[in-house]
Amino acid sequence: MAKAIQEVINLMIAEIPNAPLEDSVDTFKCGDPNQEVSGIVTTFTATLDVLRQAVALGANLIITHEPTFYDHRDNTDWLGDDPVYAAKRTFIEEHKLTIWRFHDYWHMHEPDGIQVGVEKVLGWENYQHTDNRYVIHIPPTTVAHVIEQLKQKLGTSTIRIIGDLDMPCQRIGMLLGSIGGDNQIKAFHLANLDVALCGETTEWQTGEYIRDAIAAGQKKALIILGHATSEEAGMQYLVDWLQPKIPEVKITFIPVGDPIQVV
Amino acid sequence: MAKAIQEVINLMIAEIPNAPLEDSVDTFKCGDPNQEVSGIVTTFTATLDVLRQAVALGANLIITHEPTFYDHRDNTDWLGDDPVYAAKRTFIEEHKLTIWRFHDYWHMHEPDGIQVGVEKVLGWENYQHTDNRYVIHIPPTTVAHVIEQLKQKLGTSTIRIIGDLDMPCQRIGMLLGSIGGDNQIKAFHLANLDVALCGETTEWQTGEYIRDAIAAGQKKALIILGHATSEEAGMQYLVDWLQPKIPEVKITFIPVGDPIQVV
Repeated sequence: MAKAIQEVINLMIAEIPNAPLEDSVDTFKCGDPNQEVSGIVTTFTATLDVLRQAVALGANLIITHEPTFYDHRDNTDWLGDDPVYAAKRTFIEEHKLTIWRFHDYWHMHEPDGIQVGVEKVLGWENYQHTDNRYVIHIPPTTVAHVIEQLKQKLGTSTIRIIGDLDMPCQRIGMLLGSIGGDNQIKAFHLANLDVALCGETTEWQTGEYIRDAIAAGQKKALIILGHATSEEAGMQYLVDWLQPKIPEVKITFIPVGDPIQVV
Repeated sequence: MAKAIQEVINLMIAEIPNAPLEDSVDTFKCGDPNQEVSGIVTTFTATLDVLRQAVALGANLIITHEPTFYDHRDNTDWLGDDPVYAAKRTFIEEHKLTIWRFHDYWHMHEPDGIQVGVEKVLGWENYQHTDNRYVIHIPPTTVAHVIEQLKQKLGTSTIRIIGDLDMPCQRIGMLLGSIGGDNQIKAFHLANLDVALCGETTEWQTGEYIRDAIAAGQKKALIILGHATSEEAGMQYLVDWLQPKIPEVKITFIPVGDPIQVV
């Protein structure tokens, strides 16, 4: 039976504890929720290239983890007559695309949908989870070995690190995405992390904190994966989670990868 | 004649147009401004390691560009009983060090002291400056060639880039440090930049904007140097600027380099 886009969103939100939120960035960014869904694309971020691929697949609903218009709340006033914004907006309207953000709710899922997806790809889902959902115990190893696993499983050839590659580690903070320098620092101290994995960091905050921690004789390391690399497996996992709820709609994950290359 | 630390700071601020500011992060972070200055260290960021070197040099005034306690205003309440903060604070008190931040005022200097220092190291100081002080015209070249110069002159073996290495470029935005994703995006559009050099970026903002710009057919590239690499030459230049004003005080620049390694 034909389904409206709004019905798809409703059944997703129904699975989230304490939802709906009164204030959330998980809103429609464009399009018409009353339209019948013709296909769904899930992605880390709804780039212009992802939108083109969605059109080629005949999908009219894009579920994105990150913003569409370069702003946390997708406010667009500040962009004025920016030609990049204009080109994206025109493409969206021409192809009658609806974009919905699934960020706050997916992280609020029990357990965090992004973290589940990343742990599945890493083969870490059966490691011991602590009372803090973002801290896991891996078998004792070194930072270098963790990095080797991350490169292989996440398909990235370079990783950025602050700390000693030979450092032993076991207690890992899954600080995926970009939670802010102050939150990263508090996690290191309060959760007594050996290592944190993050997407983005704030160099003048966390970077200098870890540098000082090492100078003070502490054993700490920060592994910086890049924002997309740290989270997009969670939007791939979304397909497995959502497809059984709507078997009649084709759902496709489109990876974006890291926009940054190291030269 | 002996000089108090406060006198040194006063003669620096006297050189800055529109100073003093009513609200600024350029304040004393610790110590006693009435103390006689025994020597000065300038640095990008007053790490624990820099403080140890300052003590070894007999300097009691550290002039830092970035915060001391991992927070833009150097608020410390949020750090609680953090052992890294405690170790740094103890070292500072034991050695009676005074730390003063020179951030807002150095950028307000005409021309921007950080940018002058970086341009001197790059050999770019005689290139044509536009009516926008942060935009310069370099001789027509490619992104790859700019990166080659940056690596050689700034002494860094890896650089991060979003964009096409073969792209021709001439109009360069000197967006040094970490000015925020929205400001980076506005600069690309409003100043019609080919390339921007930045310290840090916000991947989900500027990163996705540049990725979309390229997908939309625009010629844009973002070169990400790392925060310290993008600014510390400006604190080296501070020695040349300050030393003639106080020839009787020894001033030493201490480099910190990038805390992050790429593996």
